[in-house]
Amino acid sequence: MKKCFKPLVAILLATASLGAAAQQAKPEQLIKWRQSVYQVLAWNQARIKANVEGQFNKDEVIRAANSTAAIANSGLGALFAPGTDTGKGWRDTTVKPELFSDTKGAAEAAGNFAREANELARVAATGDAAAVKVQFGKVGESCKACHDDYRKKD
Amino acid sequence: MKKCFKPLVAILLATASLGAAAQQAKPEQLIKWRQSVYQVLAWNQARIKANVEGQFNKDEVIRAANSTAAIANSGLGALFAPGTDTGKGWRDTTVKPELFSDTKGAAEAAGNFAREANELARVAATGDAAAVKVQFGKVGESCKACHDDYRKKD
Repeated sequence: MKKCFKPLVAILLATASLGAAAQQAKPEQLIKWRQSVYQVLAWNQARIKANVEGQFNKDEVIRAANSTAAIANSGLGALFAPGTDTGKGWRDTTVKPELFSDTKGAAEAAGNFAREANELARVAATGDAAAVKVQFGKVGESCKACHDDYRKKD
Repeated sequence: MKKCFKPLVAILLATASLGAAAQQAKPEQLIKWRQSVYQVLAWNQARIKANVEGQFNKDEVIRAANSTAAIANSGLGALFAPGTDTGKGWRDTTVKPELFSDTKGAAEAAGNFAREANELARVAATGDAAAVKVQFGKVGESCKACHDDYRKKD
């Protein structure tokens, strides 16, 4: 796992650094990409939820958890570049202006999510369904905390 | 890397098995999720392209390549469940009916993509920009081959 899941400092640096593609892409493209990221995360969450509430398939949970962790580690801050506070990707963005003014809080929220997602991937690899259920709840809490602070209600 | 990147057999099994969430989700949801998957892959590709054509940032390339590989390994076949050959997610699906009739060919295409994506993640970890460029091209070829056979023109 060590090579796949980067430490928190890398995530925070990634949040601060926009990266080459984000510098070149239009705001509408960045918004579409980030809306897509959250849909893929939702798919992974749905899969893990179905497994912890029903028949537990260790391999499916590992696949979903690894995908979530790799995405969480992949520098999502780049998708919230200046100029993407309003605009339309697949649909109008639901981001709150606070994400752009409270950069410290937003970086902390991203770091919390990545930390919990990486822990979920670690726990999933053990195949311990009860432990996955507990850690899955913690990932959900990190999602909700960020949504409460930085996402408008639909 | 070993624990993150599942072997080909797992990918093919994942393609054959729908998984719990896919069995519960509506076709429109599955189509939206898969359209989102390809946008996230496009983001990763854009980042790697910008790096191999411009200033090479090893860490950004690793993050993007790991995300691509984890998604490729995550059981994408589940998003092409029966009943998703037509319908609208974010937009009308562009999948061709051949993907559902030629299941062997589709599984091979998915396997090729996953193999090349996993190799890209391995090469990215070395930081060898020239080798990344070569392998990035192979990933692109696996994408194009699948698009040619199974995706309608926009």
